[in-house]
Amino acid sequence: MTITITAFEWSPDGGKGLACDTRVRWALEEVGQPYEVRLVSFRAMKEPAHLALHPFGQIPTYEEGDLALFETGSIVLHIAERHAGLLPDDANGRARAITWMFAALSTVEPPILEHATARLLEGDKSWSKERLPLVQDRVRDRLKQLSSRLGDADWLDGPFSAGDLMMVSVLLRLRSSGILDEFPKLAAYVARGEARPAYKRAFDAQLVLYSGKPPTG
Amino acid sequence: MTITITAFEWSPDGGKGLACDTRVRWALEEVGQPYEVRLVSFRAMKEPAHLALHPFGQIPTYEEGDLALFETGSIVLHIAERHAGLLPDDANGRARAITWMFAALSTVEPPILEHATARLLEGDKSWSKERLPLVQDRVRDRLKQLSSRLGDADWLDGPFSAGDLMMVSVLLRLRSSGILDEFPKLAAYVARGEARPAYKRAFDAQLVLYSGKPPTG
Repeated sequence: MTITITAFEWSPDGGKGLACDTRVRWALEEVGQPYEVRLVSFRAMKEPAHLALHPFGQIPTYEEGDLALFETGSIVLHIAERHAGLLPDDANGRARAITWMFAALSTVEPPILEHATARLLEGDKSWSKERLPLVQDRVRDRLKQLSSRLGDADWLDGPFSAGDLMMVSVLLRLRSSGILDEFPKLAAYVARGEARPAYKRAFDAQLVLYSGKPPTG
Repeated sequence: MTITITAFEWSPDGGKGLACDTRVRWALEEVGQPYEVRLVSFRAMKEPAHLALHPFGQIPTYEEGDLALFETGSIVLHIAERHAGLLPDDANGRARAITWMFAALSTVEPPILEHATARLLEGDKSWSKERLPLVQDRVRDRLKQLSSRLGDADWLDGPFSAGDLMMVSVLLRLRSSGILDEFPKLAAYVARGEARPAYKRAFDAQLVLYSGKPPTG
């Protein structure tokens, strides 16, 4: 059965790979599954046809036969559970890798999203300059704990897993802020993720779409 | 094998059930698994013994034989996958229920957490009064989409599932703000969750611990 995912018709980041379809592309590349992409405009994302697939009007979605999923975490977990390459063989190791997926999305990403919101949506507000350091410190608190746990290991728990895929993807959102570079072990961890051939294929596939100018009209 | 979870020694909400151990207790009650609770003080949560279990120094954790997990979402998924009662039997239905777990934690809870942060950690800041309505509107945007998807159904996708358990738990965090009551279908959905006998047992178990005064010293 053909796997079809959705992605932005035009990406605001100009191809930096920060849109969440890159996470799903990466997972599919790691397990060697081909996929097709349907591009969705910002306008179409809020219309009934797309809302039927994704109730929050976002990308990515995942369709395979009569299965339709949304939520990046759920899609990556679905891929990881059905194909070899993203979860360990033993049950306990699998449960721990899945734990790191949730940790990336539920514990590490929220302060990073709050930081992005503070810069992008509230950057012109009167409180922005005074508030931003508070938000940055919340991000640093999490990264300090994460760096301490990672230590000198290559990956969070044994071999590379879907947990690492998600954590690297979440941390990549911080690169332009400079905060990631304050944590050399995490910066090296992210670089190891980016160096994986599957990541490069996923990144290149979205770059081809987004490196041009935005569509007119 | 005995299941042992961790919970706060003293809960700042005085027993409202908003600490995340309630979500794990609820899942264990739904599937009928007994469990033990180890209480952890705020100080002990940041010490090496607990950080070895939970790298971000939080509760709950989950121990069963030689398996140790952290992250509420991961723990609830682990329980749901190993015992009947929280996931449908068919593979596609299971994947969709897991999607709602991720939606609760990754899409609905972040703006709710931001709202809690704005009230609790930034309530005394000069920008608080002007900024809070912006944050509340981000919460409303999500709730509007969620209410639209739920419609007149009892649960998000067929019978009650781990996805509903997580979504109801996330929405409960909003009750004191009054925002939930702006969405009658969601308020009724949360009330249906609270009316489940398993939720009541979980709630009562934490209430016994937290309805007293904080420990001294």
